Amino acid sequence: MTPRIKDILLSTDFGSEVMTRGWVRSRRDSKSGFCFLVINDGSCLADLQIIVDESIPGYHESIGGLLTGASVEIRGELVESPAKGQNVEVKATEIHLIGSCPPEYPLQKKRHSFEFLREIAHLRPRSNTFGAISRVRNRLSFAIHEFFQSRGFLYVHTPIVTSSDCEGAGEMFTVTTLDMENPPKDSNGKVDFSHDFFGKRSHLTVSGQLNVETHCLALGNVYTFGPTFRAENSNTSRHLAEFWMIEPEIAFCDLGGDMDLAEEFLRHLLGVLLEDCAADMKFFNDRIDNTVLATLEHIVASNFERLSYTEAIDELLKAKSANFEYPVKWGLDLQSEHERWLTEKVFKKPVILYDYPRDIKAFYMRQNEDEKTVAAMDVLVPKIGEIIGGSQREDRHDVLVARMKELDLNPDDYWWYLDLRRYGSVPHAGFGLGFERLIQFATGMQNIRDVIPFPRVPNNASF
Amino acid sequence: MTPRIKDILLSTDFGSEVMTRGWVRSRRDSKSGFCFLVINDGSCLADLQIIVDESIPGYHESIGGLLTGASVEIRGELVESPAKGQNVEVKATEIHLIGSCPPEYPLQKKRHSFEFLREIAHLRPRSNTFGAISRVRNRLSFAIHEFFQSRGFLYVHTPIVTSSDCEGAGEMFTVTTLDMENPPKDSNGKVDFSHDFFGKRSHLTVSGQLNVETHCLALGNVYTFGPTFRAENSNTSRHLAEFWMIEPEIAFCDLGGDMDLAEEFLRHLLGVLLEDCAADMKFFNDRIDNTVLATLEHIVASNFERLSYTEAIDELLKAKSANFEYPVKWGLDLQSEHERWLTEKVFKKPVILYDYPRDIKAFYMRQNEDEKTVAAMDVLVPKIGEIIGGSQREDRHDVLVARMKELDLNPDDYWWYLDLRRYGSVPHAGFGLGFERLIQFATGMQNIRDVIPFPRVPNNASF
Repeated sequence: MTPRIKDILLSTDFGSEVMTRGWVRSRRDSKSGFCFLVINDGSCLADLQIIVDESIPGYHESIGGLLTGASVEIRGELVESPAKGQNVEVKATEIHLIGSCPPEYPLQKKRHSFEFLREIAHLRPRSNTFGAISRVRNRLSFAIHEFFQSRGFLYVHTPIVTSSDCEGAGEMFTVTTLDMENPPKDSNGKVDFSHDFFGKRSHLTVSGQLNVETHCLALGNVYTFGPTFRAENSNTSRHLAEFWMIEPEIAFCDLGGDMDLAEEFLRHLLGVLLEDCAADMKFFNDRIDNTVLATLEHIVASNFERLSYTEAIDELLKAKSANFEYPVKWGLDLQSEHERWLTEKVFKKPVILYDYPRDIKAFYMRQNEDEKTVAAMDVLVPKIGEIIGGSQREDRHDVLVARMKELDLNPDDYWWYLDLRRYGSVPHAGFGLGFERLIQFATGMQNIRDVIPFPRVPNNASF
Repeated sequence: MTPRIKDILLSTDFGSEVMTRGWVRSRRDSKSGFCFLVINDGSCLADLQIIVDESIPGYHESIGGLLTGASVEIRGELVESPAKGQNVEVKATEIHLIGSCPPEYPLQKKRHSFEFLREIAHLRPRSNTFGAISRVRNRLSFAIHEFFQSRGFLYVHTPIVTSSDCEGAGEMFTVTTLDMENPPKDSNGKVDFSHDFFGKRSHLTVSGQLNVETHCLALGNVYTFGPTFRAENSNTSRHLAEFWMIEPEIAFCDLGGDMDLAEEFLRHLLGVLLEDCAADMKFFNDRIDNTVLATLEHIVASNFERLSYTEAIDELLKAKSANFEYPVKWGLDLQSEHERWLTEKVFKKPVILYDYPRDIKAFYMRQNEDEKTVAAMDVLVPKIGEIIGGSQREDRHDVLVARMKELDLNPDDYWWYLDLRRYGSVPHAGFGLGFERLIQFATGMQNIRDVIPFPRVPNNASF
């Protein structure tokens, strides 16, 4: 396979022959019969500088096409670079233009707005920012697998399409093969989904959690990492209709163990990023948000603060100067302003809140003995607020059924989920981490549409 | 975290104290005041045998509930086992019943049909077969990432929902939030998808290839590994409506390099499986298909045979005794019977066919100079036939446009895909591997519904 620029730039084997292939970022012609080419192959942020003398084979055939965006193959000699900011460059001995690029190429050297780049999402990975995002995204993805695999967690592919009635009805996408112009109708004149592909109305999943619990109660520790969907009409910089989520589920585990894993997980991932994507992270710190490096380094070095929701409310009530938009009282579903106050102002590090009021949390969370709270936890980080949400699951069959009924959920719809509490139930817990939120946090990118290759949002599923 | 049975079984630290948690597979009572419990925690195929004396703490409280399926926590002493087929067992010093299990538990010790187990897909990972499938699936998933990451390929999350007109119209699922009872209509009385969530009719993806090519032509070698969908009404043992696919895309690469990578990839994955899932693979060999171990070992040790489609046709024409259902002639889209003949009878090892007739292959495959064939390749293996399909991509803008027009595809719909050939095009190639087909092949499982946690097929998207 082609040698990568990443490796060439690390080499000190001056005088050796190298071959490189990549795309021209810029060209500068000298008046003395040679030119400087700057090329990039996506293996790293840094470009490789090439000195191309007009005497070498291929020069005259290529030079006309060597514009920004063109692809080239170059053979040459690795030499020490006299230029600032780079150790090596290549003195070409042969050049071959692979694919030309016309001057109307939309991705010229000047900086483009992220809005404009979204319109050419097929080309934007060629820019510095989106190349760096791609490498960070890749490294984090693999680090997630490494983290769980090294701890014996099994990766489970939970389903994307589901006709299970467990999922909340609102904000879901329907998946269908019915003729929408003329769908089959039942005797009441309603659309007859029994003729649909899956024999029943079906949706895109909003979470793999309930499904992955089946494997947790069979195989022990497991995790999902896959796409999830929300048909929420939110045109914000923090929402996507399609995003990737990581959801571990831990067997024989209570909320304390859940918090331990979440903290270890987050610190591990950010540590890997600082170590293995140093150049890309420096780029984000220089160009996007000059606090990201300090924030990440601080988190990696911190023990997260843990306090109960009730204690957090007391802290917030003390915060006279905060001027919250949403007044604080026990029972409030904390807003980003409250979460950020706690993590940014009060504790100045990540905070894990636990034991939330049961009325603001999901039915499957384990009820505490106070009968007012559930064993839920949220991990809060600066600038974002909640980045991880989790809970110990209600593993007591009767308590779970009673809670469903209180919430007007039909236990029959959950027959298989309840079976897990009927047959060898065990305490278990888990959490969810939205992958794009994590990348947004780690890189400082303002808009979540810029941390996923092809964002899906209201009115846009292009490419 | 809880120690796993996998590790306990490997320990030789006899006399040491151990703690284990798991689910009861069976119990055998002796008449002399003790019982044998066999427990499993999903970490491996093997169970752990526990000797529980009636004198130990917890015995009397637990014994009534210690039925198949119950969850338990046991502390005890690791002792050498006198029994055949196991080296260690645990002499319990304390037992605690965590979750009981009633006698009507559907997963009793007897063997159940796979059809029955599909109906309790939420419990089947507790069976030996599906526990083994889960571990094999997990190991292969991670091995796929390890393979590509160690070779510098970047993992790209291509979109699941798309309104791009590039994808073939047939056999796709529509994704919508329109009110299907009463959808908005345009002035012609047709459903007005401009009011749909994405502002346009949208579908579930059938392949990430076209999308991932955008990143290949920016970042070099990349791959996808995600869910893909076919709304094909095929009720067979080889089709799923939702399945996972791996699609690498290699920059600066021709069909030869593509074949090299596919061969290396397949041999690597099967080698990892033989090495790291030895007990599970032995189980499949003993219980499911007694040829799988020999087949996999043979493939790992073989150089794949490579021959052109045209040469393959010649071989098939010589096969007088084969009695093919579909008569052989040049231009035929090879059927499983032909593929299997070549790999099972003629070459007795995996075969890679290349240079297929252009008329039976996709528009994006690179046309060869003979104007009759394209640079496509299929990897064929015994029992399955095609397991990998790939091609060098047509990287010449004008040739690609001409081919689209021949096939009545509208180049405007492919504007962004064509841009990749306009701006710094490079030779590139890739392939697709259906993950479930691979698991089916590796384990010998007859029905593809039994190698994915929750299969989605016509009339069924339960759980």
